[in-house]
Amino acid sequence: MGLLRFLPLLLVLSAIASAAASQSVLRMVSEGPPCGDGDDLYCDSWRLSEETNNAGYWKTIPARCLQFVAEYMNGDRFASDSAVVAAESLAFAQTVQVVGDGKDVWIFDVDETLLSNLPYYAVNGYGSEDFNETTFDEWVNLAKAPALPASLRLYEELLGLGFQVVLLTGRVEAQRNVTAENLSFAGYHSWNRLILREDSDIGKKAVRYKSGRRAELEAQGYRIHGNSGDQWSDLLGSPMAMRSFKLPNPMYYIQ
Amino acid sequence: MGLLRFLPLLLVLSAIASAAASQSVLRMVSEGPPCGDGDDLYCDSWRLSEETNNAGYWKTIPARCLQFVAEYMNGDRFASDSAVVAAESLAFAQTVQVVGDGKDVWIFDVDETLLSNLPYYAVNGYGSEDFNETTFDEWVNLAKAPALPASLRLYEELLGLGFQVVLLTGRVEAQRNVTAENLSFAGYHSWNRLILREDSDIGKKAVRYKSGRRAELEAQGYRIHGNSGDQWSDLLGSPMAMRSFKLPNPMYYIQ
Repeated sequence: MGLLRFLPLLLVLSAIASAAASQSVLRMVSEGPPCGDGDDLYCDSWRLSEETNNAGYWKTIPARCLQFVAEYMNGDRFASDSAVVAAESLAFAQTVQVVGDGKDVWIFDVDETLLSNLPYYAVNGYGSEDFNETTFDEWVNLAKAPALPASLRLYEELLGLGFQVVLLTGRVEAQRNVTAENLSFAGYHSWNRLILREDSDIGKKAVRYKSGRRAELEAQGYRIHGNSGDQWSDLLGSPMAMRSFKLPNPMYYIQ
Repeated sequence: MGLLRFLPLLLVLSAIASAAASQSVLRMVSEGPPCGDGDDLYCDSWRLSEETNNAGYWKTIPARCLQFVAEYMNGDRFASDSAVVAAESLAFAQTVQVVGDGKDVWIFDVDETLLSNLPYYAVNGYGSEDFNETTFDEWVNLAKAPALPASLRLYEELLGLGFQVVLLTGRVEAQRNVTAENLSFAGYHSWNRLILREDSDIGKKAVRYKSGRRAELEAQGYRIHGNSGDQWSDLLGSPMAMRSFKLPNPMYYIQ
């Protein structure tokens, strides 16, 4: 309680404020793919299993994989994985016949899809600690999450191709202003709409909330060609988009 | 034409027949995870993208990833990835209340799920060459594909838990006998049924054929708890199993 409660937030702020602090967050992190020990082999297999949804629900990352996840997120591999999924998304988007009636939609999730909360997770154990809604909401309210670079490029390219971009997030209506502010801060613009959880959505599992919103969009005549999200609950459920793209996120799982 | 047509098959036979030949197949392969160059970084991201179905349909592996795929399939990583998905499958299976009325089902695909065709692909470019139905069918007719060890262990454990095992394969009825023979050769036994493509299924996309068969099973009162396959077309489509498990296979993609 008291000051300790704000410690994670203070650490986030200091990480943002100073390059020196950023370096210290990365001090244990080396670059490049893993090439070795038993933990790396296991953790690489665990990461594949959570990315393919084989692992099902998990609450925190395996304790032995903390350094692996830190290295993955801060090294070349996360950037490379993100760039490849963006390239595949664009390759598909370029095959879509955009009609020009304003009904051709691409859906993006927000957290870990357009915006990176890595500055927060880097000082909160990279998913090894139980989720703390209080400190995470404080981080959200700062509206300073940076863009994921590959997603920002894809976003611009989709706008250029004539898609309507719909943002569909698990964040709640009370966070609308800070979310829009953060998206603008990170370089995003010109979205068709930003859909957040209304009071009636609170407590719904994400897959039900999000597929329900997709059904509403389709009922309004929108054609959902692509859907980009870091969670399987962004993508699964009926109706699905024509093509779904799972962005990497080995730090947390949302049901 | 002529002898050349049988060259891949002769190579397979010699690879099986002699340990020396097996060693030569592996001569360019080193063990362990990749740790380095640009191709490895790209190919690792490509592999994630095809395992998550982000890549969509692909006909052959990227040319620059031939050595990567060969190393992956023959090294520790494929074995580790296979063991982790089997462990996750078993962890889920142990939570299922098996009723004991013979209606609790686990579905397995056959190729690259129960049986490994690696001896064939090792001498046919690891997915870098166009699929050759003639030589592949000749390999199938040998009925000598080995078990994937993690799958064989899981299979035994599921039988022990009381599941009915249903095998659902894209192979055709004409291959029923060699398929059953090969499964027995590899150590599998006691399956409830082996479902193969009938004449009316020829030409159907795998996802339609397989989800159609799952619908028939459900209509017959079976409860499909788990579904294990190396292709997304083994797992997607309606109805899906309660939990689906994607086994690794970076060598080919079946629509």
